[in-house]
Amino acid sequence: MNKTIRKAVLLCLSLCCGVALSANDGSSLWLDYQPLSAQESQKAEYTARLTAISYQTDTPTIQAAIEELQLASEALLAHAPQAVRSNRSRPGEAVLAFGRDRAIGQLKATETLSALGEDGYLIRSADDRTYILANSDKGVLYGAFHLIRLMQTRQDISALNLAESPAYDARILNHWDNLDRSVERGYAGASIWEWEALPGTVSDRYKMYARANAAVGINGSVLNNVNANANFITPAYLEKIKVLADIFRPYGIRVYLSINFNSPQSIGGLDTSDPLDPRVRGWWKDKAKEIYGYIPDFGGFLVKANSEGQPGPQDYGRTHVDGANMLAEALKPYGGLIMWRAFVYTVNATDPSYDRAMQSYLEFVPLDGQFADNVIVQVKNGPIDFQPREPINSLFGAMKETPLMIEFQITQEYLGHSIQLAYLAPMYKETLDQDTYCAGPGSTVAKVTDGGVYPIPVSAIAGVANTGTDANWTGHIFAQSNWYGFGRLAWNPELTSDAIADEWIRMTFTNDPEFVAPVKGIMMASHEAAVNYMQPLGLHHIFAGNHHYGPGVWERLSQTTDRPDWVPEWYHRADSLAIGFDRTTGGTGYVSQYFSPLKELYNNIETCPENLLLFFHRVSWDYRMKNGRTLWDEMCYKYTEGLDAVRGFQKDWDRLEGKIDPERFRHVQYKLREQTRDAIWWRDGVLLYFQSLNHKPIPYELERPINTLELLMRYRIPGGNSSVAPGARPLVMPTSPMAPGVPTTN
Amino acid sequence: MNKTIRKAVLLCLSLCCGVALSANDGSSLWLDYQPLSAQESQKAEYTARLTAISYQTDTPTIQAAIEELQLASEALLAHAPQAVRSNRSRPGEAVLAFGRDRAIGQLKATETLSALGEDGYLIRSADDRTYILANSDKGVLYGAFHLIRLMQTRQDISALNLAESPAYDARILNHWDNLDRSVERGYAGASIWEWEALPGTVSDRYKMYARANAAVGINGSVLNNVNANANFITPAYLEKIKVLADIFRPYGIRVYLSINFNSPQSIGGLDTSDPLDPRVRGWWKDKAKEIYGYIPDFGGFLVKANSEGQPGPQDYGRTHVDGANMLAEALKPYGGLIMWRAFVYTVNATDPSYDRAMQSYLEFVPLDGQFADNVIVQVKNGPIDFQPREPINSLFGAMKETPLMIEFQITQEYLGHSIQLAYLAPMYKETLDQDTYCAGPGSTVAKVTDGGVYPIPVSAIAGVANTGTDANWTGHIFAQSNWYGFGRLAWNPELTSDAIADEWIRMTFTNDPEFVAPVKGIMMASHEAAVNYMQPLGLHHIFAGNHHYGPGVWERLSQTTDRPDWVPEWYHRADSLAIGFDRTTGGTGYVSQYFSPLKELYNNIETCPENLLLFFHRVSWDYRMKNGRTLWDEMCYKYTEGLDAVRGFQKDWDRLEGKIDPERFRHVQYKLREQTRDAIWWRDGVLLYFQSLNHKPIPYELERPINTLELLMRYRIPGGNSSVAPGARPLVMPTSPMAPGVPTTN
Repeated sequence: MNKTIRKAVLLCLSLCCGVALSANDGSSLWLDYQPLSAQESQKAEYTARLTAISYQTDTPTIQAAIEELQLASEALLAHAPQAVRSNRSRPGEAVLAFGRDRAIGQLKATETLSALGEDGYLIRSADDRTYILANSDKGVLYGAFHLIRLMQTRQDISALNLAESPAYDARILNHWDNLDRSVERGYAGASIWEWEALPGTVSDRYKMYARANAAVGINGSVLNNVNANANFITPAYLEKIKVLADIFRPYGIRVYLSINFNSPQSIGGLDTSDPLDPRVRGWWKDKAKEIYGYIPDFGGFLVKANSEGQPGPQDYGRTHVDGANMLAEALKPYGGLIMWRAFVYTVNATDPSYDRAMQSYLEFVPLDGQFADNVIVQVKNGPIDFQPREPINSLFGAMKETPLMIEFQITQEYLGHSIQLAYLAPMYKETLDQDTYCAGPGSTVAKVTDGGVYPIPVSAIAGVANTGTDANWTGHIFAQSNWYGFGRLAWNPELTSDAIADEWIRMTFTNDPEFVAPVKGIMMASHEAAVNYMQPLGLHHIFAGNHHYGPGVWERLSQTTDRPDWVPEWYHRADSLAIGFDRTTGGTGYVSQYFSPLKELYNNIETCPENLLLFFHRVSWDYRMKNGRTLWDEMCYKYTEGLDAVRGFQKDWDRLEGKIDPERFRHVQYKLREQTRDAIWWRDGVLLYFQSLNHKPIPYELERPINTLELLMRYRIPGGNSSVAPGARPLVMPTSPMAPGVPTTN
Repeated sequence: MNKTIRKAVLLCLSLCCGVALSANDGSSLWLDYQPLSAQESQKAEYTARLTAISYQTDTPTIQAAIEELQLASEALLAHAPQAVRSNRSRPGEAVLAFGRDRAIGQLKATETLSALGEDGYLIRSADDRTYILANSDKGVLYGAFHLIRLMQTRQDISALNLAESPAYDARILNHWDNLDRSVERGYAGASIWEWEALPGTVSDRYKMYARANAAVGINGSVLNNVNANANFITPAYLEKIKVLADIFRPYGIRVYLSINFNSPQSIGGLDTSDPLDPRVRGWWKDKAKEIYGYIPDFGGFLVKANSEGQPGPQDYGRTHVDGANMLAEALKPYGGLIMWRAFVYTVNATDPSYDRAMQSYLEFVPLDGQFADNVIVQVKNGPIDFQPREPINSLFGAMKETPLMIEFQITQEYLGHSIQLAYLAPMYKETLDQDTYCAGPGSTVAKVTDGGVYPIPVSAIAGVANTGTDANWTGHIFAQSNWYGFGRLAWNPELTSDAIADEWIRMTFTNDPEFVAPVKGIMMASHEAAVNYMQPLGLHHIFAGNHHYGPGVWERLSQTTDRPDWVPEWYHRADSLAIGFDRTTGGTGYVSQYFSPLKELYNNIETCPENLLLFFHRVSWDYRMKNGRTLWDEMCYKYTEGLDAVRGFQKDWDRLEGKIDPERFRHVQYKLREQTRDAIWWRDGVLLYFQSLNHKPIPYELERPINTLELLMRYRIPGGNSSVAPGARPLVMPTSPMAPGVPTTN
């Protein structure tokens, strides 16, 4: 190209990309409306469909829907449609209608709508109008966001006929945010809840938080850490929380709180918290009344009881049922929900037959059918603890008369914090799509939890949030996609990870196909890459204690005073001959907690999926994998694949310079460099440690380590539980030892 | 193979490798005699040729030769030949003869010998005997070591007819060892000279040092740093030095000392050191007499004067000639030599026309023909300062009436200290083989300096030593090969780097061809690899100031108070458009100091060798290289080649586990890991810095950086001038800033 042509092209490009090339700190999440350029055919089409907005019944939520359509239209089309309250719409208008509104009858949508429930909606193009119809104003708001998403992703909106309704009733974010605004396992700054400023000072972020969640279908928020501070349910804090609830309400988001089971003693002045003590039951009833006085649509309690040292009913010789039902009774009059966590593993870990993976099943299955109907048991996706890859939790499908809700982790506690790019929708899907066989083939975890297998009074799904005060909310721009992806799957678990990534990239960055395709490629490969350079082949929980960021594979049972089941060696069990945790019928027998044929599939080393091999089997280093390699060689290959994948991400990303704003481009480029460094740290650390046991060479065709085991073993990340400082990691000589700390999980 | 066979094979193998598989700390250097196994055909042959050793004239040096032959024979053949003093030898004996000994006449070797000079020798097989004939007992000792080397490398010794004589008269190691036992640019521990213990306590290492040097032909040792402390020539130290001289003497090694030109003032009590002052001249004469009283065969003085702040004749308005000739006069009566360094660059560096590369030529060429005949001018191989690659120093060939000696650096100041594997014989050869054209084609640097072009009274060559108190002497086992290689080339510059590497590997490790071939491959590729990941394409002196280990390419003239010619930017001169130092006739004109056609070759960008391009030319980033790539792309490729080469060394080395003792295997394996880390540091640092100027992408097919420029620029190695602590380098966030220090060179 000669200079003039190149200049013209550059000019044209910069016009096409428009705002995209100006600075962008990522703070608008997926509501980042890039104006359509004159070159885009859809601009005229969209404008013609949004000449005005008409509605019949007014509510704060309808006003919110109108505001969103106007905001989007102004930014995307440089045209602000007027909102007209009337029961007669004109051609070209977007019509918002719910309940008994006239338009619904006109379109004979009443019956269809009735099947879609409180949050469902219809979007129909008819008579030159675009109708958003729902049973409630919330449904209309969700529909409005759907229409906006179609425009953000440049879809045809001229002939729409959509019916949507969410798979789960409660779609919840769990914030592990503390009173002091620290965030347990948070990697994006401090808590977004400014307790010290509330109720007087109100951050704009609260509304942005509500809009972003509503746009993706999330309708509940547990504001505080499950390791709960009782003060959150005192008037001083309820006053602050009321402010948030009032801001969230128009966006259909209910506030929940984690409670401390000891509250009757710690803040109630009682001498017990025994759930069968009438004074205790009375105290909780009064407390419920008090809370609902502040927040009439309060969602309910999340409870971590008799888990990792938290108080609970067992302290009084009572059961989880006694505890949960007491609280359920207190909230029942107000429609409140009790989410009771099943994350318990308190049996004597020194008993050789003990297997942490089996505990929640052993404690909860006997209680099936005894919980009140406004209690739901919250179960982590896997039996251990949010590992990069785990089999499904054996509880799914095992409690036929108790609703179970699934708990995913959005914050990347074990997946690279906010330093590494790991798109987790594929991991969520792996769990949701897994068949439990509890009622024969097709009884997937999704179906079991959304009521598709056994009827349940209420269905719910939760994700541990990754939000913080960082300008981009999540520390790593791409961590936004995990928040987004969780929300989308909570609405519809049938969506593919690929489709969600595609939407998110277009809504967050650009519709430029030369950007969308390679970035989607990175995202879709990123979770498997992380598994490969951290814990392939079923390895689990070999992270360094406390920070859960780097490898701690060398932490030996003999050298620790921690609980054995907090020590990596307890999980990998490697020695000179073999590696892996035998959970077959010949081992701890954990496999027997699954239904057939899953039980047999996992129990047989020949049929056990190789990506879970060492989770279920103790295997000789010389075991032949399906590809003919020995287990050790295959492990070396997997770690190398993981590292090379991240190097590939760097190459792919660097080619995209200029296609988006330099701010976000450099942000990701920087993070990817750190990720490659840390992938080397993982690969070197784990392979060199296992090699020190099995004395086998790393296949000579593979890249060699560049660290020594001695240095890596001595290396400690400062900060532990807190976020990992950029670059404060090898490949170097250890500098300052990390303060010894007991690992905490949730 | 079934078990029993495998066992048999393993047993056999371990027998073959013999001692090689037992621990070895590398302390015996190239005198590491591995016993021949029964399987080796040569064992019987060698034994039959060493039934006994006969000699006629006895001297300490002859006794040393006998001892060496006995040591070697005992270790290699498990047989100690008796030494018989007699003028009648028996068949099967090794016959040592020199001077007027009978055997020489018998073999009619008198004439041949006379051409071989004081250090030359003949080795002849005749009448079933092996004769080592020479003019001096030193020649016999060198011949004995030659015979031993033939056996160490498993050569046929049944029909020998060798004539050897060294190319250079003086083959010298320069130790930059200080009085406090620190070693400037030393990376192998403290000085091997235990000044505090001498003369009372005498380390075994002194004799080992003499044996190792004699074995490779080195016959002189400058014991102290050229930045000289005057106390070395006071009686207190001369007493200590005498002990070393007495130990070295039988091995043909003369002691030299670096002197401080100010000594008449600092230790002589005079008020001047003016070389034309009679009192000063008298003081030096007395000092010479005193020194020779202690050490009758004292070699002479090495002088760094008016260089980098050292005192010199110019302080009194005198010239280098005045200074050198005064000292020459003092040593003349005793046959002492003055080595006067030409490493001077004291002109005002802020003058834009100033070019450090030109200074020694400008100062010394006018003095040609004025130096006394026992003065020799010591010239570094290149015009700057021991860079990984430089063109030859323009002084070579330019002083027709003054002997020049070449100074190489064995210690790896700019070549990875004792952390990186860089075999330097190829670099020495590059200089020695380069044609200066001073007397037409064939006037190579070797010929110019060894007297092959102009007749010179004395020829000499020096290498800056890399010895220290580390058990293996040189920090890195492979650094021994640079000491060895320097010695072999000082004896015979015609030897190939490949042949020297082959000898050294066999003498140091093993004759196992499966080890020798790949290790030779690593060695032969190692210098070019270092050039590529540090300073390819003629880049020079972009090291971090002070430690000269890692990149300091970002050190800007504008940000420094140092001399401009101590700042990397002064050398690379990179900006957004171009990079390189214009030394053509259109630039500083340095090229004009070379003879035609070298001058024209370097002056023309089309003919200038690309591996020196940026040393001679300022070149646009978009300049097309011969392979069609732009300069910037080619630079990215070169740095990548360098990094990948080191990764390749790791793969090659790891395959050799078990072929040598685990101690040295792991030592090298560890060092290679560090080398790869530091190659990444170099590549990332230099490419990211230049990219920050030219804003060009690193070709997308190449591996991406994993560090950020900001972090690398802030990073400082603790310790500066001293050795670099293992692992105390990136890839990490800087920890403690290095104390600012002025770079010192020698």
